[in-house]
Amino acid sequence: MQDTTYAYQQLLDFTIQVFKKIGCPDTDAVTAASVLLSADLRGVDSHGVARLSGYVRLWEAKRVNATPQITVIHETPSTAVVDGDGGLGLVVAPFAMQLAIEKARNVGTGWVSVQHSNHYGIAAAHAMKALEHDMIGISMTNASPLVAPTFSISKMLGTNPICVAAPAGVQPPFVADLATTTAANGKLEILQRKEEAAPLGWVQDAEGHASTDASILKKGGALLPLGGDREHGSHKGYALGAVVDIFSALLSGANYAPWVPPFPAYVPMPERQPGKGIGHFFGAMRVDAFRTVEAYKRDMDDWISGFRNAAPIQGQEQVLIPGDPERIMEAERSREGIPLLPAVAADLKALGDKLGVVF
Amino acid sequence: MQDTTYAYQQLLDFTIQVFKKIGCPDTDAVTAASVLLSADLRGVDSHGVARLSGYVRLWEAKRVNATPQITVIHETPSTAVVDGDGGLGLVVAPFAMQLAIEKARNVGTGWVSVQHSNHYGIAAAHAMKALEHDMIGISMTNASPLVAPTFSISKMLGTNPICVAAPAGVQPPFVADLATTTAANGKLEILQRKEEAAPLGWVQDAEGHASTDASILKKGGALLPLGGDREHGSHKGYALGAVVDIFSALLSGANYAPWVPPFPAYVPMPERQPGKGIGHFFGAMRVDAFRTVEAYKRDMDDWISGFRNAAPIQGQEQVLIPGDPERIMEAERSREGIPLLPAVAADLKALGDKLGVVF
Repeated sequence: MQDTTYAYQQLLDFTIQVFKKIGCPDTDAVTAASVLLSADLRGVDSHGVARLSGYVRLWEAKRVNATPQITVIHETPSTAVVDGDGGLGLVVAPFAMQLAIEKARNVGTGWVSVQHSNHYGIAAAHAMKALEHDMIGISMTNASPLVAPTFSISKMLGTNPICVAAPAGVQPPFVADLATTTAANGKLEILQRKEEAAPLGWVQDAEGHASTDASILKKGGALLPLGGDREHGSHKGYALGAVVDIFSALLSGANYAPWVPPFPAYVPMPERQPGKGIGHFFGAMRVDAFRTVEAYKRDMDDWISGFRNAAPIQGQEQVLIPGDPERIMEAERSREGIPLLPAVAADLKALGDKLGVVF
Repeated sequence: MQDTTYAYQQLLDFTIQVFKKIGCPDTDAVTAASVLLSADLRGVDSHGVARLSGYVRLWEAKRVNATPQITVIHETPSTAVVDGDGGLGLVVAPFAMQLAIEKARNVGTGWVSVQHSNHYGIAAAHAMKALEHDMIGISMTNASPLVAPTFSISKMLGTNPICVAAPAGVQPPFVADLATTTAANGKLEILQRKEEAAPLGWVQDAEGHASTDASILKKGGALLPLGGDREHGSHKGYALGAVVDIFSALLSGANYAPWVPPFPAYVPMPERQPGKGIGHFFGAMRVDAFRTVEAYKRDMDDWISGFRNAAPIQGQEQVLIPGDPERIMEAERSREGIPLLPAVAADLKALGDKLGVVF
């Protein structure tokens, strides 16, 4: 079967209705749907509407609170800790990022750590909110454990992504959004469906040996930190994933390391809960807290065009600026619609039927 | 010839005398020597006294100002830009990190970007200053171009290290200090001396092909970003190195990308100088700007012991916490002295003879 293409607005409206049906207030439903759909627009299909029924199942399992009282439980002029009250990360994260932006407006930068949240979609959706304010935005989150630290067979960290979004002038912004693993789990899932092997350096088996089995996570294997093995710097990927965990959970009081709650509702909750829910971390830095926006943007444009025009390797692509592929995809999909796999479309249809929303 | 071992205090005194001889004020000479020697103590031999004569040559070439007027040229309650006035990075960086700590004391966090500086030693020397204040410390710097971004043959970025130091309770602190490349240049130099091959994924040749030649940088080759190639996530290492450049130079007005001044004084200055000197970036976050130090330290100790006790791969080492190897080395070398290669010792002897300082 072929993929069918759906207009962005159509998928957005459907998603808003679904979130309303599970009890989200209207504004929260719109916020959550916009964040979720930004993944589909940007081509991160693993984190978009394909996950909508997963969020609903978390709500059915009473692991998501549709009407959270999101509160600031601690703050200073440049920092805050937000308690997400078990709400959708898709709603809690925009609240926290907005708070970081307000603090940056007041004292130059704002840094918000979040406890008691859930999965927040793509990291870029939040960091990029800073751009319209001529601020650099930072977003990271911990996630349920799939990644073994260097020298271990135990899954101790999530894919713990980091996004840094920096504005430019006439050039489009710089948006680096990266899981701290060699490859994101979504890429493994694509290989599984195609029954293809994974490159060496992506995963290891249950004994910690190098593996090319794309299904190895179901057999006790683990994703590998960026770098792959010790000789290629996996201890650096492990350290970066650990930093995300420390900023997101140790600073907020969320669950950390192997105790982060899973996304699939059928996976039992970890035996221990040293904190509350999932943790995120957000930052906003006003450019003009450092230098004039004009001087920064002039240099940033020069930086970007310098990289874009760097001599390419013969036969390979032109040098890309972080965020280029996603921005190109967003323009295309805004215009031409978002293609969904038949299985995803069928899942949304079934979800709509169950909740009484027309897909 | 065997390495000879020197007491820390002996090397420190010598280094202080050398910095005084080139005109550094007494306190600056002590600061610079302490930062430089912290690399030798922690086992990062490429960044310690082995570089002392290199710093002196930069001063001889009038690329380092021994008596800088370090000034704050822009600030908000949580941010500042420091102009290093061409001083030693070993002196400018401690000034800037101290400023970040003071701002964190006032408003929760402090963030300082630095222009017009020089090489600052190891990133950890600065980030770790935050630990004694129960703050998380962050340190990064750009550096002269050795690294090709994904898909390019051009050296556009330095090894651009990032250090994050986070305090713990009864456990030693977490100190991640990593170049954003697969391997630091110092490791390549060791392989060159031994006439050994480099693992695939560390470097590429002048045409951008995979190479195992440890001397390839002298033949137009380049270091590779963490990840090695596109399939293993080199675009992530490239993005991280780029973030370091943006925070260190685009926010401060320092030179960026291929225009960062070189460390060896015999290498001509880049043809263009879009900014001033080398750029750094420092951050300090007060733990109690987020939650009580007591709760954080309890969880951090639990986090660290959880990782240290994670199931090891059979036949491999126990899981390490970032900073473990360097801390163990520091304890050993503080006690037993710092071994120097004969060539390094001879170089220091010659330097001492030239400046009239007894080695």
